[in-house]
Amino acid sequence: MSESAPAWVVPAALTPGASIRVVAPSGPFDARLVWRGLGWLRQRYEVRFDRGMFETRGYLAGDDPRREGELAAALLEPGVSAVICARGGYGASRFAHRLDWTTLRTSPRWLVGFSDVTALHVEAAAVRVSSWHAPNVTALGQGNAEAREAFVDALEHPRRVRSFAGLDPMFAGRAVGPLFGGNLTLLHACAAAGRLRVPPGAVLFLEDVTEQPYRLDRMLTTLLVGGHLEAVSGVVLGEFTDCRPGRDGVTVEAVLRELLAGLGKPVASGLPCGHGLTNVPLLFGARATLTVEPNRVALGFEPPSTRID
Amino acid sequence: MSESAPAWVVPAALTPGASIRVVAPSGPFDARLVWRGLGWLRQRYEVRFDRGMFETRGYLAGDDPRREGELAAALLEPGVSAVICARGGYGASRFAHRLDWTTLRTSPRWLVGFSDVTALHVEAAAVRVSSWHAPNVTALGQGNAEAREAFVDALEHPRRVRSFAGLDPMFAGRAVGPLFGGNLTLLHACAAAGRLRVPPGAVLFLEDVTEQPYRLDRMLTTLLVGGHLEAVSGVVLGEFTDCRPGRDGVTVEAVLRELLAGLGKPVASGLPCGHGLTNVPLLFGARATLTVEPNRVALGFEPPSTRID
Repeated sequence: MSESAPAWVVPAALTPGASIRVVAPSGPFDARLVWRGLGWLRQRYEVRFDRGMFETRGYLAGDDPRREGELAAALLEPGVSAVICARGGYGASRFAHRLDWTTLRTSPRWLVGFSDVTALHVEAAAVRVSSWHAPNVTALGQGNAEAREAFVDALEHPRRVRSFAGLDPMFAGRAVGPLFGGNLTLLHACAAAGRLRVPPGAVLFLEDVTEQPYRLDRMLTTLLVGGHLEAVSGVVLGEFTDCRPGRDGVTVEAVLRELLAGLGKPVASGLPCGHGLTNVPLLFGARATLTVEPNRVALGFEPPSTRID
Repeated sequence: MSESAPAWVVPAALTPGASIRVVAPSGPFDARLVWRGLGWLRQRYEVRFDRGMFETRGYLAGDDPRREGELAAALLEPGVSAVICARGGYGASRFAHRLDWTTLRTSPRWLVGFSDVTALHVEAAAVRVSSWHAPNVTALGQGNAEAREAFVDALEHPRRVRSFAGLDPMFAGRAVGPLFGGNLTLLHACAAAGRLRVPPGAVLFLEDVTEQPYRLDRMLTTLLVGGHLEAVSGVVLGEFTDCRPGRDGVTVEAVLRELLAGLGKPVASGLPCGHGLTNVPLLFGARATLTVEPNRVALGFEPPSTRID
């Protein structure tokens, strides 16, 4: 590598029987869905969790010390191969900056989740540890066989080369760089909190849910104005679920197209990731290749260490 | 002054017959309300505006070049004593960072408005020019005699010492510093854009509209995490209009109280400013005194130059 940044650490693949810990760093959840998800995970792994995870404190899964302590312990607990989030919502931003993330590099393990969990992926990426942007336990509890299979495949075969064809072209070009991103609202909040460090050359993935187009405009505009997207090599757009136009009729696609045009980088949309029915696991930190050409629009990624080892 | 920061510039008071320019840097508006507001302003001032102000482009009052050009010209136009915004909404953030705000210091004039106009107040404060957080023209068009009287009084008597008693105490103490702030959503966006520079010692005013409590939590949390409120000497809360609890039942007041407790600074609420029926003009950059004592909860302010001249 020509950069001075450290190489990405890729935690070890899970095997059946591996120990995983489920945590709830964000919002409270439908306990039935989480129990179902836990039950399914238990068929394959040794699943650990604290009963406190089921606490509800307004829109939080227990108070800050509980959620922070739970995650801090999970990041250091011997023998744990993956830390899987019960649900998103809101709450990880309240303490993510206080955790010592360097231990994730020295004692690597998978951080798994999406939506509000973006705040944690941002911290993992800052110390260059790969993490899985993938369904939370509530989503696994919904019993979609395909989603569960993809989840196990991700955790047990992180070094598999993966690709998604048939995306929709927005701006042509080819980009290669570390896969990174997540929920736009959370990335924006991380920027305001001074925590967002987009890896140089990143292929940036974005998704969101229930945000009106003008709000997406504001968030993407401020990321652009703040220079957070200057080092991005390309953008791949996932689901923008229930981001319906207001009375003005402006669509999400129109907003994203207008604002991303200024980047001058390849952009594709239609990646089945985010808050939609399908949420294909994405390996953050992977070496991603985004191709937006007349005859081919695709995203491929492989673990970074297949090149840097 | 002990700091090395430059003294605040206070633009000249308006007199009847003064030239003012109305601009639309943000969203489109109900033209009837603006015509009514213009009609009322014309009874007292020489009112200038471009017809292009009435353009609508989705959720914007015309495209970026139109809105940016209109404001840039207004900031330099000879003889103009005040630049008054037609409406908030969204859109000023798209170009505020590109304007040369130093001319506001060398050719001072009043910047007047609120809500999305917070993005412009942030830029004015960064160059230490006082501005009026006050109703936009659409609000003036609604014909509230008291609001109109307060508006004229603000523009024509900016050096008048003003005070508001009867606020609600949240945390006790006494703070003295430059009055600054505005819409929390916009301040948060300015932080993400790298534009927010809270003046040292600021008495921070906050208001918002149609944001759920958990969203206000996220925005205030990230401002705190990002260190943006470290130099604040006190906080005065205005209206949080239609910021109703979600299913979790957590109120705005509970969120603000919990998060602001950590500041260890005096906090009062109930200032009649923001998106409510009353929107009392606030002189940003004024020397504000926030008093939260058992027998007295009040905000007072006076132009900074009464002390530093």
